[in-house]
Amino acid sequence: MDAAQFEVKPYPEMWKDLDMDVDRFEKARVMLGEAYAKTYLSQANRPAKMAYFDAMISEIHGGRVKELLAAKKEGRPVVGTFCVYIPEEIVIAAGGICVGLCGGSQGSVPDAEKILPRNICPMVKSAFGFKAGRICPYFQAVDFVYGETTCDAKKKTWEILDRMVPTYVMEIPQMKKARDRELWLEEVKDFNAKVEEVAGRTISEADLDSAISVMNEKRRALQRLTALRGANPAPISGKDALLIEQIAFYDEPVRFAAQVNELCDELEERVQKGRGVTEAAAPRVMVSGTPMALPNWKIHNLVETAGAVIVGEESCIGTRYFKDLTDEKLSSMEEKLAALTDRYMKIDCSCFTPNDERIEQIAKEYENSGAQGIIHYSLQFCHTYNIEEIKVREMCERENIPYLSIESDYSAEDIGQLQTRIEAFLEQIRG
Amino acid sequence: MDAAQFEVKPYPEMWKDLDMDVDRFEKARVMLGEAYAKTYLSQANRPAKMAYFDAMISEIHGGRVKELLAAKKEGRPVVGTFCVYIPEEIVIAAGGICVGLCGGSQGSVPDAEKILPRNICPMVKSAFGFKAGRICPYFQAVDFVYGETTCDAKKKTWEILDRMVPTYVMEIPQMKKARDRELWLEEVKDFNAKVEEVAGRTISEADLDSAISVMNEKRRALQRLTALRGANPAPISGKDALLIEQIAFYDEPVRFAAQVNELCDELEERVQKGRGVTEAAAPRVMVSGTPMALPNWKIHNLVETAGAVIVGEESCIGTRYFKDLTDEKLSSMEEKLAALTDRYMKIDCSCFTPNDERIEQIAKEYENSGAQGIIHYSLQFCHTYNIEEIKVREMCERENIPYLSIESDYSAEDIGQLQTRIEAFLEQIRG
Repeated sequence: MDAAQFEVKPYPEMWKDLDMDVDRFEKARVMLGEAYAKTYLSQANRPAKMAYFDAMISEIHGGRVKELLAAKKEGRPVVGTFCVYIPEEIVIAAGGICVGLCGGSQGSVPDAEKILPRNICPMVKSAFGFKAGRICPYFQAVDFVYGETTCDAKKKTWEILDRMVPTYVMEIPQMKKARDRELWLEEVKDFNAKVEEVAGRTISEADLDSAISVMNEKRRALQRLTALRGANPAPISGKDALLIEQIAFYDEPVRFAAQVNELCDELEERVQKGRGVTEAAAPRVMVSGTPMALPNWKIHNLVETAGAVIVGEESCIGTRYFKDLTDEKLSSMEEKLAALTDRYMKIDCSCFTPNDERIEQIAKEYENSGAQGIIHYSLQFCHTYNIEEIKVREMCERENIPYLSIESDYSAEDIGQLQTRIEAFLEQIRG
Repeated sequence: MDAAQFEVKPYPEMWKDLDMDVDRFEKARVMLGEAYAKTYLSQANRPAKMAYFDAMISEIHGGRVKELLAAKKEGRPVVGTFCVYIPEEIVIAAGGICVGLCGGSQGSVPDAEKILPRNICPMVKSAFGFKAGRICPYFQAVDFVYGETTCDAKKKTWEILDRMVPTYVMEIPQMKKARDRELWLEEVKDFNAKVEEVAGRTISEADLDSAISVMNEKRRALQRLTALRGANPAPISGKDALLIEQIAFYDEPVRFAAQVNELCDELEERVQKGRGVTEAAAPRVMVSGTPMALPNWKIHNLVETAGAVIVGEESCIGTRYFKDLTDEKLSSMEEKLAALTDRYMKIDCSCFTPNDERIEQIAKEYENSGAQGIIHYSLQFCHTYNIEEIKVREMCERENIPYLSIESDYSAEDIGQLQTRIEAFLEQIRG
């Protein structure tokens, strides 16, 4: 796609109908288009099949929102989320849509800071600000927001957010004992009932089977993409892979999986031909840590602009979202909900104590990705990832893995400092 | 007591036996003694019965530690804690001792920041640093530390602390549904088994009855003290009351309750005679928010030095610790443990979502205390209290209660700024 012609398309009428702050949003739309063109369309040697994902960004404030509104008109529930710890399968089984909400940019942070403390996670502030400022069409379109108790900042912010948009909170346990699984199973059943209530219909076994299959298919496609990034030279940039992982949170899952698979076909060809987005000599970096909500491309952009390639994200925006599938061979509704419960209990979020399986997972992904170093990325003030970072660092020291730890927010203030630190880190890898 | 003669008594031999950093601790001991003399013994018109509590500070690094070591010699478990969310009754029932650990001073923060992130709560950092630096005799004396999952920073820090001292973590639920109570009941039973294991004995029904009675008696004594502070003029300073609430966490409970009751007898006399620590015209302030571990007297000292009096602490160091009693009229072990479960589920910690009963509790305590304004105090980076502060502020606005919100750490850096803000707040109350 021609960078000069790219734009995020405007839908002012629809935005007005959604009670958005249209004038302000119009500016955000232009800025996002420019940032995308500059960050993404300037890349050399992109796979042709990235065109679909470019188009998804172009239609991020229009086409996909229209699909949501059409679904709502048909009485299908639309649920906004911020976390991988939501049994999406249940929403899909009810004919509904799960959509990741806006929460990845600095622009909405001042809106939040009028109410929330300044020293909490930028993602929570950004998300809250998007709703407070009425500058996210998804927030305006959902039936309800799905909240969870994975961290202190989110847990308490939902209480305030609920005043602006109905916010349903599921309790995520903090350990993984049998009693935690029992509690979570009850939460899953309650969520099932909540979604049925909003949808005005009962979820059948066939509905849930189909939804589990849809989500497994989507997750398999993302697993396939991840595996292909292990090739050297890498057939796709980390930025593009990250973008796909971000789009995974708002695109229609069947279409999305098909498009990811088409892209993977192209990448397989590239791998066979030994063709990559960079030379084989480019340093290969894996990122581990907190999620990067769209359009948070900060670290990937800095690393790849410095000549390296990112080959994996051990993160909620990356493998944590799709590494685990749900068992499809179960017969009763009770068993299916239990299978979902078990699938979600495998999530190695730092909200659990202890969470040492995550450290093992990072080591495994590092090996599979052929990375040569790990950057731990933590959103500012994210206590759980920030403290768990100690164990990631120790593992890297044990395994002699080059390691860099970054804590950052959404502002541009630390760009210069990060650039210097990342360049020094890449020098260390180059040796 | 004569301020010039006051000292925290040294026990270098015992400290050495406890594997402490004796040279460094010696300096801390002298500093604590000086700070105490300056902050406490300079107060005019103190109740005579404060002498016991002065002596407790004088023996904080000696006499009480000796009692702990004697208990250990007899095989009685000694459990270190940081939270009111521990069923102390179980430890006492096993003949053991619960003791609040060091975590209230800036001196140990740099030790923690060598390992932990800087931008987490000062209490967590201070506590961790006390163990890392071997400068807290209580930390050195305990059989194990009791941790809990009430906040992200503590939850993840226990994993690291456990390397230095055995740390047993109880899972505190995040909501108050029936399933949360079930989970917590199971946790209480496990804790009972853990304490029995450490004590090497079984806890009988009579043991638990007796322990529940001991703790209820202690809590009643603290309730009585709180009620007396409602008189105008206040018969005791907020600083002294805070000190007693702090000592509550490490003193022997039966002796402590008796001493608090003796003090209350004296205060009752004062109230009858209309005698106070300040004039009746002194502004009356209630503090609400996060706990103040010994020797964190920062806010109380600033407020009372400015001529006001603090008449209540809605905090884990204050009423949250003692407002609820445990039902004593139950017959089976199962029922007794369930009663404990229910008692602890009443705690209105901001770790719960929602936690609106706390807002009601603040309003109630405000009324009972005869306060004329509320200071909300939040330890820096304490996300749950910091966000819940929004609801406290709103309640104060609704009820026309003069209100000041303070977020602070243990450093002296913000003293000047706080002084100015507190003085302006007191001017507002004076009208």
